[in-house]
Amino acid sequence: MTAPSDIEDLIGLMARLPGLGPRSARRAVLTLLKKRGPLMAPLAQAMAHVALTARDCATCGNIGTSDLCPICADPKRQTGEICVVADVADLWAMERAGVFRGRYHVLGGTLSALDGTGPDELRIPALVARVRDEATAEVILALNATVDGQTTAHYIADALEPTGVRITSLAQGVPVGGELDYLDDGTIGAALRARRQV
Amino acid sequence: MTAPSDIEDLIGLMARLPGLGPRSARRAVLTLLKKRGPLMAPLAQAMAHVALTARDCATCGNIGTSDLCPICADPKRQTGEICVVADVADLWAMERAGVFRGRYHVLGGTLSALDGTGPDELRIPALVARVRDEATAEVILALNATVDGQTTAHYIADALEPTGVRITSLAQGVPVGGELDYLDDGTIGAALRARRQV
Repeated sequence: MTAPSDIEDLIGLMARLPGLGPRSARRAVLTLLKKRGPLMAPLAQAMAHVALTARDCATCGNIGTSDLCPICADPKRQTGEICVVADVADLWAMERAGVFRGRYHVLGGTLSALDGTGPDELRIPALVARVRDEATAEVILALNATVDGQTTAHYIADALEPTGVRITSLAQGVPVGGELDYLDDGTIGAALRARRQV
Repeated sequence: MTAPSDIEDLIGLMARLPGLGPRSARRAVLTLLKKRGPLMAPLAQAMAHVALTARDCATCGNIGTSDLCPICADPKRQTGEICVVADVADLWAMERAGVFRGRYHVLGGTLSALDGTGPDELRIPALVARVRDEATAEVILALNATVDGQTTAHYIADALEPTGVRITSLAQGVPVGGELDYLDDGTIGAALRARRQV
């Protein structure tokens, strides 16, 4: 044996987190064991609390602690603009940027032939119903500029076409602070095609 | 806001673990949120359980779930041989190797002028008392081959001298699978000085 079995179980569970392997999970648990009072007990409590209270927002799919997520429940957020993101992580990234004041719709992934994710696994029907039911002026597709992300964007644009809503997507181009010399050909091409009058 | 405050608190606590920064803690918490049933709830429960039951062994300083750690409580482990390690992580490393069948003594760190760790912060007086009280034949110093580790080894050897116990330390030399061309001069020198008859 190395550690008592309770502690080995804890290490095994920690090792299933992304970014932690068996070795770093062991190190993390040792740190926790050394800081039982100031860190381990509060962390266990916070985790149990969130595990119990967290739920997917019935409207947008964001994660919150009640049936409506904080964004859907916020009367100051504009209705009529829905930003479609693949994942909660992308929603958080948009919110960190602090430039969007509308509502979100979290798909729960992207279409992927490789992973076998079809339209029925994603919240696309819910999006179409939402665009129909709410007075939606614009749907902004904020999906990754990857093959899967762009496939999903095209699929959603097709699915939303009958509703007549305005569909836009994030601009592609040179990132802020980016140097042309280090950019890939695809990005430079996209930036040239989408050039703007100064 | 990005995530609800409960979730932000959880991310903040996770980010205090070694090997996780704010970004990877966020990613880990998102994974937990997606696997609330199969991963988050069991992890929170295992952590709370260990935080409640884990305690330092009164004899050797190892971490266990009762007053005596599993090794000190095991009647099959030889008494009379005490292996001194700096940390519980080192004890686990020794146990993984599976070559030592005696008991341990965990110092809780090494002497360090830089960190201000003196002999009183470590469990050295407890070691001296233990060597006196138990019928100890040999004390094996299994400390890191670093300046702090070797300073601590020298200090312990001095402190134990009056007891007359046999004091040994781990051999230094070429690691198993090591290639001479890649070894540092210090290791080659130590291996040459400690050469053995074939």
